[in-house]
Amino acid sequence: MTLDDAALDLLFREARTHNGWKPEPVPESLLRQVFDLAKMGPTSANCSPLRIVFVSTPEGKARLKPALSAGNLEKTIAAPVTAIFGTDTLFYEELPKLFPHADAKVWFTSSPALAEATAFRNSTLQAGYFILAARALGLDCGPMSGFDNAAVDKEFFPDGRVKSNLLCNLGHGDPAKLFPRSPRFTFEEACSIA
Amino acid sequence: MTLDDAALDLLFREARTHNGWKPEPVPESLLRQVFDLAKMGPTSANCSPLRIVFVSTPEGKARLKPALSAGNLEKTIAAPVTAIFGTDTLFYEELPKLFPHADAKVWFTSSPALAEATAFRNSTLQAGYFILAARALGLDCGPMSGFDNAAVDKEFFPDGRVKSNLLCNLGHGDPAKLFPRSPRFTFEEACSIA
Repeated sequence: MTLDDAALDLLFREARTHNGWKPEPVPESLLRQVFDLAKMGPTSANCSPLRIVFVSTPEGKARLKPALSAGNLEKTIAAPVTAIFGTDTLFYEELPKLFPHADAKVWFTSSPALAEATAFRNSTLQAGYFILAARALGLDCGPMSGFDNAAVDKEFFPDGRVKSNLLCNLGHGDPAKLFPRSPRFTFEEACSIA
Repeated sequence: MTLDDAALDLLFREARTHNGWKPEPVPESLLRQVFDLAKMGPTSANCSPLRIVFVSTPEGKARLKPALSAGNLEKTIAAPVTAIFGTDTLFYEELPKLFPHADAKVWFTSSPALAEATAFRNSTLQAGYFILAARALGLDCGPMSGFDNAAVDKEFFPDGRVKSNLLCNLGHGDPAKLFPRSPRFTFEEACSIA
């Protein structure tokens, strides 16, 4: 089985990073459906380090606002939901539950550098899965990494265990506020065969 | 528009990380189609730092073999293709082409720490897009990060500009060699609303 052209357009070819948002809200039930798809994507030793705060209330947006860069401010306040994608730096504490058939926790407690790279790599992979799962369920996305990570962490992850990775506005985008599509590499520019 | 259940199963719910591979080859034309979908996914300032070596020949597999961990060896040699997902650490050199409407290169030349995090984060997002694009076109995936990165870099990226991030076997998986599905977090365990 393969996806048809309409599905590939929805996920990849026609999907765009949105800068303007229609007022139509995003119900929590839809966020749950997106998460339940995205969480099925593969991570190293099923470590699943992504943690998400869905900022959807005026109070939440007010807490987020001081951490936003000028260019991301207006659109992020306007978006129905802004997901804070964070990384659980102590993800390996959960491995006895998530990867019960091996003692994987010690792989990471014995190597802080491996733990750090694994946390960042896999929370980012999961953010990528989330973006495509959101599109698959009809949402538009506006991911961004231009913000004050330390300010977000202090406000939303005060115990220090979770570190913010990227933000992603979610909702129904306003096509009138799209920028022109930027160019992409050809296969030859980015890929080779060995 | 939203994807139907069969499409969501293909991408997320029924897709699995494969450990055994049928001999059916993966043509280069299909790798090109997957890349041309995955490259459309969003990256920060369209920076597109993912570089891929598709290892598909016996000679290429022999070059990769010494860098593989014991648990990943047999399945990786057996896979029709192993993609080496690498990160272009000098991705910002391409920004005048990829992000022509702003002088984004200086954002990264002025901050090595920002450049390093941006390179890793965005090549990993692109790897996530690639995995789902491969599934969308009927391929099975077996991503892994347990390998000797320095050995892969020395063999496949000798000029030092590109650093290996993760590997991903590609082909048609053998369902008989699947492990049982590991548990995932509930929404409440990984997410909150603010």
